[in-house]
Amino acid sequence: MSGTLYVVGTGPGNPDQMTPEAARAVSASIEFFGYFPYIDRLSLRPDQRKVASDNREELNRAQAALRRAAEGVNVCVVSGGDPGVFAMAAAVCEAIDAGPAAWREVDLVVVPGVTAMLAVAARIGAPLGHDFCAISLSDNLKPWAVIEKRLRLVAEAGLVTALYNPISKARPWQLGKAFEILRAELPAETPVVFGRAAGRPDEQMLVMPLGEADAGRADMATCVIIGSAQTRVIARNGRPDLVYTPRFLPPEAT
Amino acid sequence: MSGTLYVVGTGPGNPDQMTPEAARAVSASIEFFGYFPYIDRLSLRPDQRKVASDNREELNRAQAALRRAAEGVNVCVVSGGDPGVFAMAAAVCEAIDAGPAAWREVDLVVVPGVTAMLAVAARIGAPLGHDFCAISLSDNLKPWAVIEKRLRLVAEAGLVTALYNPISKARPWQLGKAFEILRAELPAETPVVFGRAAGRPDEQMLVMPLGEADAGRADMATCVIIGSAQTRVIARNGRPDLVYTPRFLPPEAT
Repeated sequence: MSGTLYVVGTGPGNPDQMTPEAARAVSASIEFFGYFPYIDRLSLRPDQRKVASDNREELNRAQAALRRAAEGVNVCVVSGGDPGVFAMAAAVCEAIDAGPAAWREVDLVVVPGVTAMLAVAARIGAPLGHDFCAISLSDNLKPWAVIEKRLRLVAEAGLVTALYNPISKARPWQLGKAFEILRAELPAETPVVFGRAAGRPDEQMLVMPLGEADAGRADMATCVIIGSAQTRVIARNGRPDLVYTPRFLPPEAT
Repeated sequence: MSGTLYVVGTGPGNPDQMTPEAARAVSASIEFFGYFPYIDRLSLRPDQRKVASDNREELNRAQAALRRAAEGVNVCVVSGGDPGVFAMAAAVCEAIDAGPAAWREVDLVVVPGVTAMLAVAARIGAPLGHDFCAISLSDNLKPWAVIEKRLRLVAEAGLVTALYNPISKARPWQLGKAFEILRAELPAETPVVFGRAAGRPDEQMLVMPLGEADAGRADMATCVIIGSAQTRVIARNGRPDLVYTPRFLPPEAT
């Protein structure tokens, strides 16, 4: 009989932002597969075991977890944030799709979580207050030309855009180029939020107008939210600015 | 001295999908503003009070809550899901933006939650596994022509689309029209997920190809996820189909 394969997101990193459902899935699991900094956010019992795997090899990791679940072990594949957003749930499904028939019999339970853009949005106001999109800026996963096309189209559509994986040592110029593309489509004063480590002790929130947005202010732990032409900033005395996108889009704005 | 105004999402409706942070905000509040079915998901103490307000009047409700917070009361504005996604956080920011200076002094704490599309996606596999968007189909909030334009542009961009507020008594034809627009842009076999009450006892998940997608299968509690041309279905013996969007977009697909 197969074990259960849980795919869990830890949320943004603050244990208070992880749901009881996710905590229960962790408690029910014996072997843990994932990027170690995510697994290390969990308090594991002595009978629970971290399994090492190459950080960049998500498909291998998914296969290793499925193999153990098919052998009858309850396993947990751990992502940060929500496991369905640029994370391990898709990798597990890919492995099942291409894998042996036995993997389709594994009891698969994906547990939703708080993804980074929601945590960042909450800390700054309501920048995702109307239609929005989430785009990964990693061109490991798709051709850069597709990313450029998507950025132009979503800006034309008037969506707020959350950028995941905005920058890394191997991808140093992509975020700057994304700002350049969006500057051609959106007003220079459009608010850009750099949300780093939302909800964690090392949290940093920064708001800049798109015209001055500096890609150097982002790192791998940053989610960048670029407003639409409707997004507004509220200045407050002695408190951080609020950024929000109104729910209503007046006909004259279209 | 002003009270704290918490803006909280209950998550999809299963108490196990609400974060400890949200539970603590509820515990710290004395007066609760929101659509009663959402507030009724909380177990309030005898000293905690529900405040009635017109369900459709989100701005009035936000103003009433800000007024009480400015008077020194700890209040909680309650949404379903995540309060920043088509919910009360934007209404509260709008009220602050247009309101008296004292409202900018209110201690505002927005608590993120699990929004419907993440809960639905988790139950069905990983349909949001790559770039995606969230669009409200309510034309109370914006002109219908804008919605049509957005649907065409995001389909052209290759994004997966989550539709919120897909249908209601007052808006019976909009979802059917959205399918018609997307059928002109996407393959007929593109998977469409109707996710109703994800994570609750009355949950219903239904997958249909876009060519046959029937708007009559949705109600107000449904989040509809329409795949991209890359989205795939995995059939499983004796288990529900899985729907996922691969993380990689091969160059030949663009």
